Amino acid sequence: MNNVIALLKSHRSIRKFLDRAVSQELIESLIESGQCAATSSFIQACTVIQVNDPDTRAKLRDCAADQIYVSEAPVFLVFCADMQRHRLACDMHQSPMLSGYTEQFLTASLDCALFAQNVLIGAESVGLGGCYIGALRNNIAEVDYLLKLPELVYPLFGLCLGYPDQDPEIKPRLPLPVVLKQDSYDDCSDRIFIEEYDRDVRSYYTTRTAGAIDQSWSEQISAMLIKEARPHMLSYLRDKGFLLK
Amino acid sequence: MNNVIALLKSHRSIRKFLDRAVSQELIESLIESGQCAATSSFIQACTVIQVNDPDTRAKLRDCAADQIYVSEAPVFLVFCADMQRHRLACDMHQSPMLSGYTEQFLTASLDCALFAQNVLIGAESVGLGGCYIGALRNNIAEVDYLLKLPELVYPLFGLCLGYPDQDPEIKPRLPLPVVLKQDSYDDCSDRIFIEEYDRDVRSYYTTRTAGAIDQSWSEQISAMLIKEARPHMLSYLRDKGFLLK
Repeated sequence: MNNVIALLKSHRSIRKFLDRAVSQELIESLIESGQCAATSSFIQACTVIQVNDPDTRAKLRDCAADQIYVSEAPVFLVFCADMQRHRLACDMHQSPMLSGYTEQFLTASLDCALFAQNVLIGAESVGLGGCYIGALRNNIAEVDYLLKLPELVYPLFGLCLGYPDQDPEIKPRLPLPVVLKQDSYDDCSDRIFIEEYDRDVRSYYTTRTAGAIDQSWSEQISAMLIKEARPHMLSYLRDKGFLLK
Repeated sequence: MNNVIALLKSHRSIRKFLDRAVSQELIESLIESGQCAATSSFIQACTVIQVNDPDTRAKLRDCAADQIYVSEAPVFLVFCADMQRHRLACDMHQSPMLSGYTEQFLTASLDCALFAQNVLIGAESVGLGGCYIGALRNNIAEVDYLLKLPELVYPLFGLCLGYPDQDPEIKPRLPLPVVLKQDSYDDCSDRIFIEEYDRDVRSYYTTRTAGAIDQSWSEQISAMLIKEARPHMLSYLRDKGFLLK
C-alpha cells in the first residue's frame, strides 16, 4: 500500500478545527487540483463559491441544520453544478442551447463531485481535514438566494476545511463482497454480510459514544428511510432549469 | 506542491493500455480506497461491477459508441448507484422505505462519484491510468440488462483501468476566476476569460492533432449543446424507481 492509497483509506470527516488560517495560495492550488479531475465531454461544469463573509456564513449555517462548523471552519466552499457558462458559450456562437435534460443535470453534478473529491484529497494530503455539508440542501432555495445563483446553477454541497482539532476513528465500511460484484449484480449473500457488518457498526458507535448510541447500520438506514428525503428538491431543480425532460 | 497534489494535477485520460494484467489484490485495494470516500448520511450507495467476461465486455462496448478500450482495457468497472441494499435494510426491520425522491437519486449518484474518484486516484498513484466511460448511458437500458441490475440500481459510468501505453498531454482547464468565486456568484468577467481560454484550447487541439482539429472550448461546447442529451435517461431512471418525486 503506497502513501496515496494509505491517505485515501485514512479519511475521516473533520468537524472541529484549529484556529489557524489556510493560505489563499493553498486554497487556489486545491481548486486547480479539482479542475484537473475528469470532466464529462470537457464540460467543466463545476463552480466553487468560497464564502468568507461572516454574515453569509452564519446564514448558511442556519440553512444547514445549525452545524457550527459551517460558520467556524477556516474555509467554507460551496460546490455548484453550473451550466450557465455553457449558455454563454452557446450565445458566443449564436447556437440555441437545448437545456433541461436529466442527462445534463447528471453530468454537471458528477463533474462537481469528482472535482470536490480532488479538492478534499489534496487538502488531506497537506494535513487539512474537512467534511462535506449536504445539509445545505435542507434549505437549498435560501442558499441559492444568499449566493446569488443564476438559472442553470445549483449548490450541490458545501465543504468545510481547516487544520484538524480532533482525531476521530475511521468509520467501518460495508464488507467488500457487498460493494464489489463480478460480471453481474448478485445480492444473494448481501443480507449475511450486512448482519455481520451491523455488529461492527454497533460496536463502533457504542465505543465512540460510550454507549450513548447503540445502533447498527441497517437500523440507522431504515430509521432514515421511513422519512421523506428533502421533498422540495425536484421543484427547486426544475425552477432552476434542470430535470425538465 | 506535494506529491499528491502533483499527482492530481497530472491527470490525463488513458485509453490505450499495455498488455499487462492488474492483480485482483490491487483492484480490491482500490475498491476499498473507494469505500473510504465520504458517504452522504452513511448510505454507502455505490456498487461496483467488475466485468471480466469477454462477451459482456464486447456488448458493453457496443453500448458505449464502440469505444475499443471498453473491451480491451485490462480492467473494466461499472459504478452503480444502488439503493437496493437500503430496501434490504428496511426489510430487515420491517420499516416501509420511502423511495423515489430526487434527493435520494442525487445522494446515491454523488456517493458513487466520490467513490469512483478515489479508485481512479489510487490507481494513478500506483502507475495505472484510466478513463471514465459515460457513453455507457448511450444505451443504458441494455447495460442494465447485461449486468442484471435490479430496481433502485442504475449504472452511472464505466471506468477502464490498466498500465498506460500512451502519454497524452494534460488538457488545459478553464481559468481559475471562472470556476472560483468569492462570496457570491459573479460571472461578469467570464466571457473575457473564456475568450482567452478558447485560444489555449484551440492551440492544444491543433498541436495535438497536427491541425486536424481546430476548435475552441466554446465552439466545442456550443456544437454539443444544440443536440439532444440522451433524452431516454429520465424515463429509464423513473422505471428504475428514481426521480419519481
